[in-house]
Amino acid sequence: MTFDPSALTLAQKAALLSGADFWSTKSLPDAGIPSIVLTDGPHGVRRQAGDADHLGINDSLPSTCFPLAVAVGSSWDPQLAAQVGAAVGREARAFGVSVVLGPGVNIKRSPLCGRNFEYYSEDPHLSGVLGAAHVTAMQETGVGASVKHFAANNQEHERMRISADVDERTLREIYFPAFERVVREARPATVMCSYNKINGVYASHNRWLLTDVLRTDWGFEGAVVSDWGAVSDRVAGVAAGMDLEMPGSGGATDQQIVDAVLAGRLDEELVDESVRRVVALTELASDATGDLDVDGHHTLARQVAADSIVLLKNDESTLPIRPDTRIAVLGAFATTPRYQGGGSSHINATRVDAALDAIRDQSWAEGVTIEHATGFTEDGSGDTAALLDEAVAVAARADVAVLFVGLGDRDESEGFDRDTLALPAPQVDLIHAVAATAAKTVVVLSNGGVVSLEGWHDEVDAILEGWLLGQASGSAMSDVLFGRVNPSGHLAESIPLRLEDTPSWVNFPGEQGHVRYGEGVFVGYRYYTSAEVPVRYPFGHGLSYTTFSTESVVARVVGDAEVEVDVTVTNTGERTGKHVVQLYVAPAPAPVRRPVRELRGFAKVDLGAGESTTVTLRLDRRAFAYWDIELDRWVVTAGDHLIQVGSDAATITRETAVTLSGDTIVRELTLASTVGDWFGHPEVGPLLMQGMSAGMTAEQAQQAAENPDQLKMVESMPMQQFLAFVQGAIPEESLEQMMQLSRSAAGAAR
Amino acid sequence: MTFDPSALTLAQKAALLSGADFWSTKSLPDAGIPSIVLTDGPHGVRRQAGDADHLGINDSLPSTCFPLAVAVGSSWDPQLAAQVGAAVGREARAFGVSVVLGPGVNIKRSPLCGRNFEYYSEDPHLSGVLGAAHVTAMQETGVGASVKHFAANNQEHERMRISADVDERTLREIYFPAFERVVREARPATVMCSYNKINGVYASHNRWLLTDVLRTDWGFEGAVVSDWGAVSDRVAGVAAGMDLEMPGSGGATDQQIVDAVLAGRLDEELVDESVRRVVALTELASDATGDLDVDGHHTLARQVAADSIVLLKNDESTLPIRPDTRIAVLGAFATTPRYQGGGSSHINATRVDAALDAIRDQSWAEGVTIEHATGFTEDGSGDTAALLDEAVAVAARADVAVLFVGLGDRDESEGFDRDTLALPAPQVDLIHAVAATAAKTVVVLSNGGVVSLEGWHDEVDAILEGWLLGQASGSAMSDVLFGRVNPSGHLAESIPLRLEDTPSWVNFPGEQGHVRYGEGVFVGYRYYTSAEVPVRYPFGHGLSYTTFSTESVVARVVGDAEVEVDVTVTNTGERTGKHVVQLYVAPAPAPVRRPVRELRGFAKVDLGAGESTTVTLRLDRRAFAYWDIELDRWVVTAGDHLIQVGSDAATITRETAVTLSGDTIVRELTLASTVGDWFGHPEVGPLLMQGMSAGMTAEQAQQAAENPDQLKMVESMPMQQFLAFVQGAIPEESLEQMMQLSRSAAGAAR
Repeated sequence: MTFDPSALTLAQKAALLSGADFWSTKSLPDAGIPSIVLTDGPHGVRRQAGDADHLGINDSLPSTCFPLAVAVGSSWDPQLAAQVGAAVGREARAFGVSVVLGPGVNIKRSPLCGRNFEYYSEDPHLSGVLGAAHVTAMQETGVGASVKHFAANNQEHERMRISADVDERTLREIYFPAFERVVREARPATVMCSYNKINGVYASHNRWLLTDVLRTDWGFEGAVVSDWGAVSDRVAGVAAGMDLEMPGSGGATDQQIVDAVLAGRLDEELVDESVRRVVALTELASDATGDLDVDGHHTLARQVAADSIVLLKNDESTLPIRPDTRIAVLGAFATTPRYQGGGSSHINATRVDAALDAIRDQSWAEGVTIEHATGFTEDGSGDTAALLDEAVAVAARADVAVLFVGLGDRDESEGFDRDTLALPAPQVDLIHAVAATAAKTVVVLSNGGVVSLEGWHDEVDAILEGWLLGQASGSAMSDVLFGRVNPSGHLAESIPLRLEDTPSWVNFPGEQGHVRYGEGVFVGYRYYTSAEVPVRYPFGHGLSYTTFSTESVVARVVGDAEVEVDVTVTNTGERTGKHVVQLYVAPAPAPVRRPVRELRGFAKVDLGAGESTTVTLRLDRRAFAYWDIELDRWVVTAGDHLIQVGSDAATITRETAVTLSGDTIVRELTLASTVGDWFGHPEVGPLLMQGMSAGMTAEQAQQAAENPDQLKMVESMPMQQFLAFVQGAIPEESLEQMMQLSRSAAGAAR
Repeated sequence: MTFDPSALTLAQKAALLSGADFWSTKSLPDAGIPSIVLTDGPHGVRRQAGDADHLGINDSLPSTCFPLAVAVGSSWDPQLAAQVGAAVGREARAFGVSVVLGPGVNIKRSPLCGRNFEYYSEDPHLSGVLGAAHVTAMQETGVGASVKHFAANNQEHERMRISADVDERTLREIYFPAFERVVREARPATVMCSYNKINGVYASHNRWLLTDVLRTDWGFEGAVVSDWGAVSDRVAGVAAGMDLEMPGSGGATDQQIVDAVLAGRLDEELVDESVRRVVALTELASDATGDLDVDGHHTLARQVAADSIVLLKNDESTLPIRPDTRIAVLGAFATTPRYQGGGSSHINATRVDAALDAIRDQSWAEGVTIEHATGFTEDGSGDTAALLDEAVAVAARADVAVLFVGLGDRDESEGFDRDTLALPAPQVDLIHAVAATAAKTVVVLSNGGVVSLEGWHDEVDAILEGWLLGQASGSAMSDVLFGRVNPSGHLAESIPLRLEDTPSWVNFPGEQGHVRYGEGVFVGYRYYTSAEVPVRYPFGHGLSYTTFSTESVVARVVGDAEVEVDVTVTNTGERTGKHVVQLYVAPAPAPVRRPVRELRGFAKVDLGAGESTTVTLRLDRRAFAYWDIELDRWVVTAGDHLIQVGSDAATITRETAVTLSGDTIVRELTLASTVGDWFGHPEVGPLLMQGMSAGMTAEQAQQAAENPDQLKMVESMPMQQFLAFVQGAIPEESLEQMMQLSRSAAGAAR
């Protein structure tokens, strides 16, 4: 039942719209309104018992650190995302937490963004599907989610004041859809507004964003929560639909709300609406229920982690490691794993599996012998040359050297962006030295953001990209190294050859308060594939210890502009493995420039050796649509759209076309419409042509027919200016009639 | 003496602000105000006697067609630009024309722009210097110029209604400086506003553009004229400073002005200002004086053309053609030269030199024999295979095949943009076939916009880029082919490897009424050199029949931030030739991202074989400055700026550093300033540090010292939000004092 705020005083209502302290909302016992607790997430519960902060500085209570979004993104598996969501929900219940902040579904606009480890992908479809699965499952435990950071928060640099200058089509097609899908499909309890401005207006008081788009267009019914400290103008925030300010301001902003209502600057009904939404939140579960399933959740974290690892390269089947092999386990990250990122999402893990231990544990079963050397220190301290020499000596005695390298906590974190894709130099030196010495070299990467593989990629035999895999990272990596788990991760973001090739390079991270989204919709693979810019590994790439073949793609149009696609795949190798069917749409020509293809569907299937299956994927009309800024809506153009199946975004293995009738677009004609628009209009055009030729002399008609190029020159002239050139040629009365005709036609087509 | 409008009625004044007809202003004999004539330019006078149009459709009176801006741009020679300007001025005087429209100093943002042939360069410095030289010399004849199209008119697609969405720094640094230089140095009689919108506001009624920037910032004292038909809202135009509407509207807009003044919507003083400026225009020479110097100007056109040709490639000194050679002259453009572009600038030339005729004329003197075949037709008609076979047969009999290829009138024109860089396919086929057959192959290009050389570049021995050389194109090209003129042109725009490599590719030409200038200041070579994207030939490239060496570069700081640079060059070859000293500045680090280098000075010198000279170039402070959008002014950063001399923008041969003290920038602190800004402030920072450490416990101080990364995380937090996190840590009173202190400090530094 919706809460009725009329029994409360204005001061009471205003007070409900900000936190009681760092992590909880205010209670109003007389009105039966309890306080609830919100904590940081999203790959674990960061419940702080002592000094509260939002920067991951002070310790929180121990909880499970699941694989981070960057890893889950590479799993391409919504079921795993759901299992993580449910487990986080259960842990939150054990702590009496009502809302866990997350997941983050921001798009990875640049590989440099310091917080990319908290985000799934450079692709909105993949991000949205995984985010929705996480939220749905978590909320089924009774805990609310807070999908974040809404919106266009794609960097850490000046995140609290920078204006993301980005056009509406790009927002609608790239930066909004993951939020939209989560809101529509998973109905999150809250949405967290971001720190930044969008086109000059803070997200925290952006009514277009928080009300027009989020609530009116998408039907969001929950509460909007501020990112911690994101409020810049509280009164404007309430007017915009920003319901709950966190943390509390000690009453200062509550008073601002009261003053604004009393002064007539803020409609009290807007306050009431926010109160209703905040009170509705307090209906979420808040009792501490159940115990932390430490062992069970650690096992789950290990399973999810193993399925998230991406086998980038595996020359001559170097992996999995064969029995009776001598292994050199090298690198500081083998013993002190980097498995999560710094900042508000930092978890005090219940336990941590180091790769060296896990490999040692499995060594007896696998019949391998192990020798270890550090090779480098995470912070570059110590006698680098000696460490390197020792590691090379160990590598020289082994059949396979497995090198654990990556980025340290100082290299990337919430709060700042990187300025290079390079691995730290001592690690690169070690890779070169080991690769020159060892019989076989395997590189295992731990990193929250993409690192460059250039300079050493061709020297090594195999590469496993582990991202940040959570607390079971070491055991999960060992599972994949020995083939106990067949790797099935695929890149959720492109690995470029050079930083300068990334489409945001010119504009990232912006300056003097502004970041221009100059690449528009051409983010990630949308740019590389459209501009045919080579990358090291494309979006969607990922190898397996077995092989798969796409046998056929059959598509049929059902209903208006919906399409069903049957994809038949076979495991053509000798091991059981998981395959990701990646479905891209290459759209028919449109009035706007579109990427050559966009991911619109995917499915992960588990296939035994030699086994086949047919997956049916459904593409709705949005899978074919672009956002039209003139019509202010989604438009599907008529014509042949290609349905493409690819092993990655750059490699299409099968395709088929569907012919869609598309939306009937009859635009209204005005004096600002071009001569081309007027002559091209289905009803007005012919009339105009008749009128023109009637008024022409034979010589003029002859000349017009002989000079089609001259028509090309006036085609894009607005009718108003054209009229000035051909004074009187078209009577004002006829013009008005024709515009009226176009208005009727546009109305009929709507 | 400034005209006093008070004697005129409002209706009379309004009437003066629009044309009497297509090409002339209204007279008011009683008030002593004559009518003057404006005509199209700028590389010749397009005086229409019969039916008037602004599209180059109906013939004009014969006049000299000088090399187009695209060619003059490649000459890098302001003296030649001046000679052309003066000659055009003399021809205008002969016709009784008072204002010749042009030159166009728009920046070539994309090689696809259909009107690039009317513009000088992708670089604002080169464009501005050449434009100013043209205007100064032309105006010395008594004729007024109309520098155009102001501003951000960098494409033809939807040019009459598209909004160029471009940030102010990019306008100030890239799209404005050529206009600014012409206005400040050459004081043109008029500036022509462009058709397009800038950030949503039509140039023709953009007060920021036409008054704040043009008049207040740059001191423009002339009249602003509309591009023909550019007026969209006449009343808003007068308010913005758009003085003269062309062509006339038959009185309709005059009445709108009257009505607006009477209704109080337009200040009559603004009308008076425009009247004063329009009347001042009528003081320009308007009597028909002197005769057309047909022969003299043809000779000048030939000299300028020859010095504009760019020798792109010359393997094994294929050129110049040696005596006693058998030459195959191939290609349709050898007999029907493409020497100018379509549209308003189209000249009815007094005569036209075809290359075949010129080569034949010189053949006796050179002792060569000639055979000719067409090879293809400009419009692709006819039996393509037969034409090709014939040309190949001719080529097989020759020592050198010279192939005249390029773009035809249908391939590029005012009014539309190209969508490919490719030469027409039949011409490419011919190049392949001839190159495979002939002993030596020379390609001569005629094109207004850049064409791709890929696919055939490596097959031919020499390439001459002729652009559109005006009516003496054929004889000028013959002069260079035989070495009567040593080529000295250099590229004024980059020749990319692929269209997709051009920095505007993602956003050109825009859609649905908007074109996003997403690449910002990274236009042309500024992008290629900064992103290290390879091109076929960089900006500034150009070979000679002799060789040059840059011996030394010596720079000294004079005054505030001005620098004098001495560059010593030697002609190290065996022929007299002209060399272009290209001076680039690689700036010191700045708060904004800057191109790795920018052209800031150049000089063309004529040197005999073995001769040396030292050129002194002066760089003013603007050569080192960027536009700061926060301070709203030009800023020179302190530090080492490199002065680089290059044979092109990508090839630096000598460099030296100058250390500049830079501008003292003390920004005012506000609550929106970041924690980093506060702590970094020269006066406030230390105070803050004292206060903070005084309030800290020993443990806190210890923690702060141990965690520099945490400071990195809050560094970019605005002070307002930071205060919410550290409630009460800084008393409001102290804050206010510190902000006051920063205001004083900022005031002192201004």
